[in-house]
Amino acid sequence: MANELVYSGKTKDVFALENGNYLLKFKDDCTGKDGVFDPGENSVGLTIEGVGDVNLRMSIYFFEKINAAGIKTHYVNADLENTTMEVLPAKVFGEGLEVICRHKAVGSFYRRYKQYVEEGADLPAYVETTFKNDELGDPLVTKDGLVVLGVMTAEQYDQLKDMTQKITQIVADDLKEKGLVLYDIKFEFGYDANGDVILIDEIASGNMRVYKDGEYIDPMTLSELFFA
Amino acid sequence: MANELVYSGKTKDVFALENGNYLLKFKDDCTGKDGVFDPGENSVGLTIEGVGDVNLRMSIYFFEKINAAGIKTHYVNADLENTTMEVLPAKVFGEGLEVICRHKAVGSFYRRYKQYVEEGADLPAYVETTFKNDELGDPLVTKDGLVVLGVMTAEQYDQLKDMTQKITQIVADDLKEKGLVLYDIKFEFGYDANGDVILIDEIASGNMRVYKDGEYIDPMTLSELFFA
Repeated sequence: MANELVYSGKTKDVFALENGNYLLKFKDDCTGKDGVFDPGENSVGLTIEGVGDVNLRMSIYFFEKINAAGIKTHYVNADLENTTMEVLPAKVFGEGLEVICRHKAVGSFYRRYKQYVEEGADLPAYVETTFKNDELGDPLVTKDGLVVLGVMTAEQYDQLKDMTQKITQIVADDLKEKGLVLYDIKFEFGYDANGDVILIDEIASGNMRVYKDGEYIDPMTLSELFFA
Repeated sequence: MANELVYSGKTKDVFALENGNYLLKFKDDCTGKDGVFDPGENSVGLTIEGVGDVNLRMSIYFFEKINAAGIKTHYVNADLENTTMEVLPAKVFGEGLEVICRHKAVGSFYRRYKQYVEEGADLPAYVETTFKNDELGDPLVTKDGLVVLGVMTAEQYDQLKDMTQKITQIVADDLKEKGLVLYDIKFEFGYDANGDVILIDEIASGNMRVYKDGEYIDPMTLSELFFA
């Protein structure tokens, strides 16, 4: 029997499984603009053959490392043949929340706060949260904001921040072994039936800004270097 | 001997006093646009005779109440004849930080988060901080952001948030006795030589959004009602 399609996203389709889990089908569609892959863009800009496969492989690699470190993720197993990943059920916070961890001041952080920081300056695992909202340019929201808006509890925020910093360190350490420097990375978290925070979505080259010898590495090149 | 002019602001001039304190000269210039007083605007839009006097009188009224409640402010005394207020020396955080306390979801908070909140909904003394930066539209900054940018310590933020909630309650309670409802209010804080956080600047009708019987009361009308 075919699994039921419950959601069709920009880069993934989601199917309900009979065991209560979900199946993520990684697509070859990428966010970007004018035919250029740009993880900061909110709309699908191009399709690149094999992107789904490479994003799934990187996600498997990191989710297994993170699970092994005792940090809860939604990852159960994967099927490279069909470019799918089986995941645990989870609710998202609000209507979608991005969690960003920054090791270096670049991108929107630098643009917002350039009065106070040099571009590329070290940031000690700074974590921030933004609401997914294309029209409003993904507005920043504080811990207190998330609480008063009823999106999460203060305890869930503390759990999420702690997990984010630990996961980011795992990714940064791994990239460092490959001669790569992680500048920032974005995650999505959800929560299970007990309210426990879990890492969801994917961990792929399009979710992070990585540099090598001071030069920015675009997501496609990063995937190639990563699996070289 | 004339006091030395050390800073000329949009609505106040600042003079150094020989005793180490400063003298704020309240001007009749108001922020606004197209001849309409708008506390949300960043540029001086009009001059209204007597505005300096009425802002000084409201500031004296609230600073004395707040000092009496044991919350530290920069207020020393005032001279209504010359429209001046003597204040303690204080350093500002960064290049100017606005601290907003919201009892109701309106204005920029509602615009940012309307996906999650009804306009005018109750907010439990939510506090947020924005950098003064006209070009960037006063960007929001989180507690963690203020700390990594070196603008204040985590302890100073906690002190500032606690003081903000207490001061806002004092103002809201006072307005309530006059049949007025405080929706939100903005403050400026600084710190003294010991690093202790102190309330600075002014507390005037242009710093707050106030409603009466569900209708917004503009700052000029608010000042009239307040001293009626």
